[in-house]
Amino acid sequence: MNNRKGILIVVSGFSGAGKGTLLKSLVSKYKNYQLSISATTRSPRDGEEDGREYFFVAKEKFEEMISKGELMEHAQYVGNYYGTPKKYVEEQMNQGKDVILEIEIQGALQIKKNYPDALLVFVMPPSILELKNRLIHRGSETMDLIESRMDRAKEEAKGIEEYDYLIVNEELDSSVEELHYVIEGAHHITSRNIEWIRKMREQLNEEVKGE
Amino acid sequence: MNNRKGILIVVSGFSGAGKGTLLKSLVSKYKNYQLSISATTRSPRDGEEDGREYFFVAKEKFEEMISKGELMEHAQYVGNYYGTPKKYVEEQMNQGKDVILEIEIQGALQIKKNYPDALLVFVMPPSILELKNRLIHRGSETMDLIESRMDRAKEEAKGIEEYDYLIVNEELDSSVEELHYVIEGAHHITSRNIEWIRKMREQLNEEVKGE
Repeated sequence: MNNRKGILIVVSGFSGAGKGTLLKSLVSKYKNYQLSISATTRSPRDGEEDGREYFFVAKEKFEEMISKGELMEHAQYVGNYYGTPKKYVEEQMNQGKDVILEIEIQGALQIKKNYPDALLVFVMPPSILELKNRLIHRGSETMDLIESRMDRAKEEAKGIEEYDYLIVNEELDSSVEELHYVIEGAHHITSRNIEWIRKMREQLNEEVKGE
Repeated sequence: MNNRKGILIVVSGFSGAGKGTLLKSLVSKYKNYQLSISATTRSPRDGEEDGREYFFVAKEKFEEMISKGELMEHAQYVGNYYGTPKKYVEEQMNQGKDVILEIEIQGALQIKKNYPDALLVFVMPPSILELKNRLIHRGSETMDLIESRMDRAKEEAKGIEEYDYLIVNEELDSSVEELHYVIEGAHHITSRNIEWIRKMREQLNEEVKGE
């Protein structure tokens, strides 16, 4: 379809469900997607770069961005702020990109309220046992932290019905394809093509005179 | 996702939009689809076979099927009955197939009412001029018949918003992919996976004891 509009896509999921890897792989395989870059007040981890994984900003700067309305959504998580700068997302969508935000459920619901056209996708592990195993095998986290992530998963699971689509991330390559299908399919939703339908009706009225 | 349920898909579109070719091509490329076979009281055209393109039945037989509730939908078109036998569709869906009905808008709306989980797809030509050209180049139809098909298109266009998805059939191979994406994507709609979500929540409750 000509002139298609970029879609705003929100992806959430339990810690350990593999969202990050899934999205990186999607974006490297298909060129019409762009990952949004969040701003955060948390410290960079080893190997993270400002402007690549996150925009790392001080708490005062972040609060200024909130008060100036420069964020599409923001939330606090384990004592730090996370938020999505509007400017970057809008620039990408104006270029026709489908822009993907990887955010927590609090932020996802703010987006749903403020951008009703956004597509909300929830990524799940194939089973809870598998989720726990993945967290354990990361090796970087204490059992206390793993338990707290499981608690959080239980909380987050209450909100799944707020999401439009569900991806069960069992095998990376299949999940990448599934997410691509979901987003490509969504471009064809009738309500996203009202302008095109209007044009067709005009042509029909031109062609078929009178009733 | 394990154990996925077959989806009932309804495809409509203007005469000349290329639905038939599109669906035949989809079904031959991907094995998870099954075309439904309609019953009709119209006469077979050259090369059509009973039980392949249609079940050809007498008017009395058709009316008996209606009164016995053996049809999922039925409609009259240019003086003939067309309808979808329930039995065939249900058998295919029970085998996990996504079953596609190629039917007119009257029938599509009956399906939507009786089977709210059905997916309604409307196929359009890239432009109305192109539609008219295609009808003319079929060579088999008089200009009067072409005009009446254009009139009908204008009527049908009023109902497009009743459909969930829109495919613009410009180039066959792309349209086949797009329709496949739409249907595959639809398998991931949250409300189609409630049973799976319930299972995950149970596992989470097992794993995370207490609040």
